[in-house]
Amino acid sequence: MDNLGVVILSEIVGTALLVLLGTGVVANVALAKNKGFNGGFLMVTIGWGLAVFAGVIVAYNSGAHLNPAVTLGLVANGVTEFGSGVPVNLLSILAYIGAQLVGAILGAVFCWLAYKKHFDDEPDPANKLGVFATGPAIRSYGWNFVTEAIGTFVLVFVVIAFGGGRQGDGGLAALGALPVALLVIVIGVSLGGPTGYAINPARDLGPRIAHALLPIKGKGGSDWSYSWVPIFGPIVGGVLAGWAALALLPILTAAAGA
Amino acid sequence: MDNLGVVILSEIVGTALLVLLGTGVVANVALAKNKGFNGGFLMVTIGWGLAVFAGVIVAYNSGAHLNPAVTLGLVANGVTEFGSGVPVNLLSILAYIGAQLVGAILGAVFCWLAYKKHFDDEPDPANKLGVFATGPAIRSYGWNFVTEAIGTFVLVFVVIAFGGGRQGDGGLAALGALPVALLVIVIGVSLGGPTGYAINPARDLGPRIAHALLPIKGKGGSDWSYSWVPIFGPIVGGVLAGWAALALLPILTAAAGA
Amino acid sequence: MDNLGVVILSEIVGTALLVLLGTGVVANVALAKNKGFNGGFLMVTIGWGLAVFAGVIVAYNSGAHLNPAVTLGLVANGVTEFGSGVPVNLLSILAYIGAQLVGAILGAVFCWLAYKKHFDDEPDPANKLGVFATGPAIRSYGWNFVTEAIGTFVLVFVVIAFGGGRQGDGGLAALGALPVALLVIVIGVSLGGPTGYAINPARDLGPRIAHALLPIKGKGGSDWSYSWVPIFGPIVGGVLAGWAALALLPILTAAAGA
Amino acid sequence: MDNLGVVILSEIVGTALLVLLGTGVVANVALAKNKGFNGGFLMVTIGWGLAVFAGVIVAYNSGAHLNPAVTLGLVANGVTEFGSGVPVNLLSILAYIGAQLVGAILGAVFCWLAYKKHFDDEPDPANKLGVFATGPAIRSYGWNFVTEAIGTFVLVFVVIAFGGGRQGDGGLAALGALPVALLVIVIGVSLGGPTGYAINPARDLGPRIAHALLPIKGKGGSDWSYSWVPIFGPIVGGVLAGWAALALLPILTAAAGA
Repeated sequence: MDNLGVVILSEIVGTALLVLLGTGVVANVALAKNKGFNGGFLMVTIGWGLAVFAGVIVAYNSGAHLNPAVTLGLVANGVTEFGSGVPVNLLSILAYIGAQLVGAILGAVFCWLAYKKHFDDEPDPANKLGVFATGPAIRSYGWNFVTEAIGTFVLVFVVIAFGGGRQGDGGLAALGALPVALLVIVIGVSLGGPTGYAINPARDLGPRIAHALLPIKGKGGSDWSYSWVPIFGPIVGGVLAGWAALALLPILTAAAGA
Repeated sequence: MDNLGVVILSEIVGTALLVLLGTGVVANVALAKNKGFNGGFLMVTIGWGLAVFAGVIVAYNSGAHLNPAVTLGLVANGVTEFGSGVPVNLLSILAYIGAQLVGAILGAVFCWLAYKKHFDDEPDPANKLGVFATGPAIRSYGWNFVTEAIGTFVLVFVVIAFGGGRQGDGGLAALGALPVALLVIVIGVSLGGPTGYAINPARDLGPRIAHALLPIKGKGGSDWSYSWVPIFGPIVGGVLAGWAALALLPILTAAAGA
Repeated sequence: MDNLGVVILSEIVGTALLVLLGTGVVANVALAKNKGFNGGFLMVTIGWGLAVFAGVIVAYNSGAHLNPAVTLGLVANGVTEFGSGVPVNLLSILAYIGAQLVGAILGAVFCWLAYKKHFDDEPDPANKLGVFATGPAIRSYGWNFVTEAIGTFVLVFVVIAFGGGRQGDGGLAALGALPVALLVIVIGVSLGGPTGYAINPARDLGPRIAHALLPIKGKGGSDWSYSWVPIFGPIVGGVLAGWAALALLPILTAAAGA
Repeated sequence: MDNLGVVILSEIVGTALLVLLGTGVVANVALAKNKGFNGGFLMVTIGWGLAVFAGVIVAYNSGAHLNPAVTLGLVANGVTEFGSGVPVNLLSILAYIGAQLVGAILGAVFCWLAYKKHFDDEPDPANKLGVFATGPAIRSYGWNFVTEAIGTFVLVFVVIAFGGGRQGDGGLAALGALPVALLVIVIGVSLGGPTGYAINPARDLGPRIAHALLPIKGKGGSDWSYSWVPIFGPIVGGVLAGWAALALLPILTAAAGA
């Protein structure tokens, strides 16, 4: 099997695991009668952080981007290889992003299966949608966009500054599964208040598509009017982070060679 | 002492420690007057995760399966040795699983001793049983089975994908004590809502047997009608994970050799 | 300076840091008006676990026993050197334990200084004592003793099984600061409900002495009638763990040499 | 670019990231309508701890002081180089501290942008200031000073005892990003109750300046009367820690050479 096939499988499986575990913790906290019902925001952020941890372990062979904002941030940073011999070009970029989206949809489907009876019993359609997709605490497309961009900037900048910037072609795997998990936890607790921190277009769009397609009992609309914010906010943040790392890191790493 | 004896002792001690600490955190949260009473689901999941951490450290020499679903998942994955020279055959499989069950019973007995006065004081028999065995939030044998299978699939798939799949014969120890602990925590917060996540037949059946046998003051029934779900759900999930890892990993690991 | 002097200083400083941070988190949660007031049992257990983390880092040169139950558990295990050339004999045992007690008293004094105004403002003498010393949720000297012995057994057994049992002369440092911290956290959440888990005679007796001696505004008695439980329960648990590790580990480690 | 330029950039970026994530978690918990509103003190301390984690990763090339109390503690400890060839002198000390202050102001500005709508909606000016700067639970300048000095002493002493004391020129990076994060978490939960633990003059003064300058809707005063406590308390604690490490560590490390 060629390397692009490996990448696609790796990103599908990793992102599916990430989204299953990430949407799962929201289901546990948000849907009535669960043992973790009302478990608190800290539990949600730990769940998402460790969901990324599991995804990175499994998607090691594609560098574990698991997130179009990471892929595009690396492109903006000017890397020439994504890892394992896959060169950066339009085809490989689309392969990464497409695989992430497919994986995110699959992960959301399995979350729905794991929590099937609780989706059935939950009376509020907004809580059901909230398991799948993010929504703002105060709806303000412009400021929501800013918040998503800042959160994703932090993720991609630290990943590239420590991982890709030093190793040349890294995704989340280059930073390591545990550091990435801790980073995602802190982005959640520190910057997740206004928008629920998608910081990943696939993580939001994939489950939103699943929500629209699945026969979820008593579901409402999928809030497509907001859906562009957690797509383009993270992409802008990730690309800016790639550029910032490009501008700053040759200077920052000068010390090592001095 | 031959290797099978080492394995049996190792799995007994490791699983006993796992179950003592795991059932202990439930006792702390569920039984009246405890200092951790009503401490929240996050605390419970951290307790179970770190219980596995302690068990893996101690059961290093058997590879730390500590869970029949891990043992059978490795069998399904086609490993030929469980570790330390113990070949995979019916005897060794039974030795692992039997030791895990014995350890789980012992761990539950020590939990009962550590919380003796609180068991005596607790008025609700359901809370007492809840310390020992899992029970569903919404009783639906089919969907509860699905939830247990999905949760265990995640555990065994990640363990084999990162540990056994690369090292050939690994249990939880092959992934490492800390990564396994984090994985168990995220399975708990993310997939533990509907059933309380047994994800381990020995963890559920062993303490349920202890509950049935111990002279616990004011105890009720042991809910045997549900007991098959946390046995066969995890086994099916673990075996599917072993097969999935077998199917996917030669492809995923191709990148390394490319 | 000879090695025994190094050990004494190391244990004093490490235990002082451990107790300052450990009693500090209880003060934060228990004394009125604090920012962490009513912060929950999970926060308390994380505080104590990371307090041990900090103590182990600083007391590296004495092997970081920081706990008479660890010292005596190692003696029971039959080690001949405590580390860094200090042989096991009555003098060195007393040096370790004496230094731990002095450090614990010092740590409690600094905790009182850090929370001075909150001790002054707190109306309930029991809350003040609770910062310094443990007390049972249900007073039952026999069962409280059992709980303390089981908790300490887990601590010392895992430390020796993974650290000292393999390296020959280890205290907490032989297991490593982070694993010990995680172990102390899980003992807290899982076995800390009935007694508040002293699992360390110096941690309880030292601050209790400080409570008796310090001019704390509006303090009550120091509950000396209970004080022997968190001394002898942990010692018995630690010694049993040393013996158990001695009996089990030659068998468990046989696999490595097989 | 010369090394001092690298240091300045590194400290600016690292401290900005630290303060963005640290003030962010307070904004999430304190400002109405956020998804993490009322998320608890444990979440705040985890946020600040992991904020330092992220800052240390990014500021690796300057040794990651990120805190004037660390810089001055190292000076008091008598180091001759701050790392990467930058000698200790008045210019380099001022460069470190100035960069930390600039970074802290920048981080607070980005926090304000990320939470813009929530600052606008929040009715209570004290909650807005609380995002930026620390304030005491019980106002008592002398005891607040003591608390800040003790907390900072712990931070700087452990960093130097394990990092700088062994490696000669270390900031937070010498201890490692994860150990420092855990240390900051435990200082928060254990010593953060009375004052909200600035333990870093730049972390408090920088955001306070930002609060005074930014056009925050409905803001009140910046409480300059308290502002000297979180500046000089941490400095005194850090310098004492540097001296204490100087006095104790040659003795403590004697064991290694014995």
